[in-house]
Amino acid sequence: MAEDEVQQAPVAMRAGWPGTYFAVIFTAQRTMSDENIYQITADRMVTLAQQQPGFLGVESVRGDDGIGITVSYWQDRESIRNWRINFEHLAAQQMGRKEFYDWYHVRTAEVVGHRTFDVSLDSDAGRDPEA
Amino acid sequence: MAEDEVQQAPVAMRAGWPGTYFAVIFTAQRTMSDENIYQITADRMVTLAQQQPGFLGVESVRGDDGIGITVSYWQDRESIRNWRINFEHLAAQQMGRKEFYDWYHVRTAEVVGHRTFDVSLDSDAGRDPEA
Repeated sequence: MAEDEVQQAPVAMRAGWPGTYFAVIFTAQRTMSDENIYQITADRMVTLAQQQPGFLGVESVRGDDGIGITVSYWQDRESIRNWRINFEHLAAQQMGRKEFYDWYHVRTAEVVGHRTFDVSLDSDAGRDPEA
Repeated sequence: MAEDEVQQAPVAMRAGWPGTYFAVIFTAQRTMSDENIYQITADRMVTLAQQQPGFLGVESVRGDDGIGITVSYWQDRESIRNWRINFEHLAAQQMGRKEFYDWYHVRTAEVVGHRTFDVSLDSDAGRDPEA
């Protein structure tokens, strides 16, 4: 999905996230398939994901070469599982394999450390200096 | 860093990765600071990271709006800690806060599931169907 379609969760919102949460890291190479159909599907998936219980936020960037990284954040693995088997999402995943992507990786990961820097706050704070 | 500067680890290599590994998810907003100095620094950091013990791979994309996501993969948290406090990397981090970024987030996460699709293999395999 295009970066301008995705809302970056503001820092303040992130500060209110649970102490334990999960990231789904999706890296993919777009095919040359129709951009409109892809974009409509991608936008719909963001809207749908945002409505799922346990959804915390999403960050997404795609470069000119068609390689994209989308990281979505979830309260627990149960939320991720439910999203994964959502009926409309399953159809989109099938479209993804048939039309949209040459390859993709989906990784689920438990976030164990988080540091944030914001120039307007002049801070680099976090609960895990090792990260 | 620009996407053309980063080597995507091929699927086969990833298949040989350890069963347990960690991801460092770096999301950032670039300032309008000089692109050349940034690019030289970013390229150097990729080269340096690749030389660190425990480094597995890196994926990086930046969009036209200057928002970028870089995910690097590491064997264990010790490797991440050592990279974090690498002398040259510490200097680059300081440059990052002073010059390169309006904001960034660094998250360390333990990868607990991984699925891969490759159109040339017609497969969607992984050790965690839930992901």
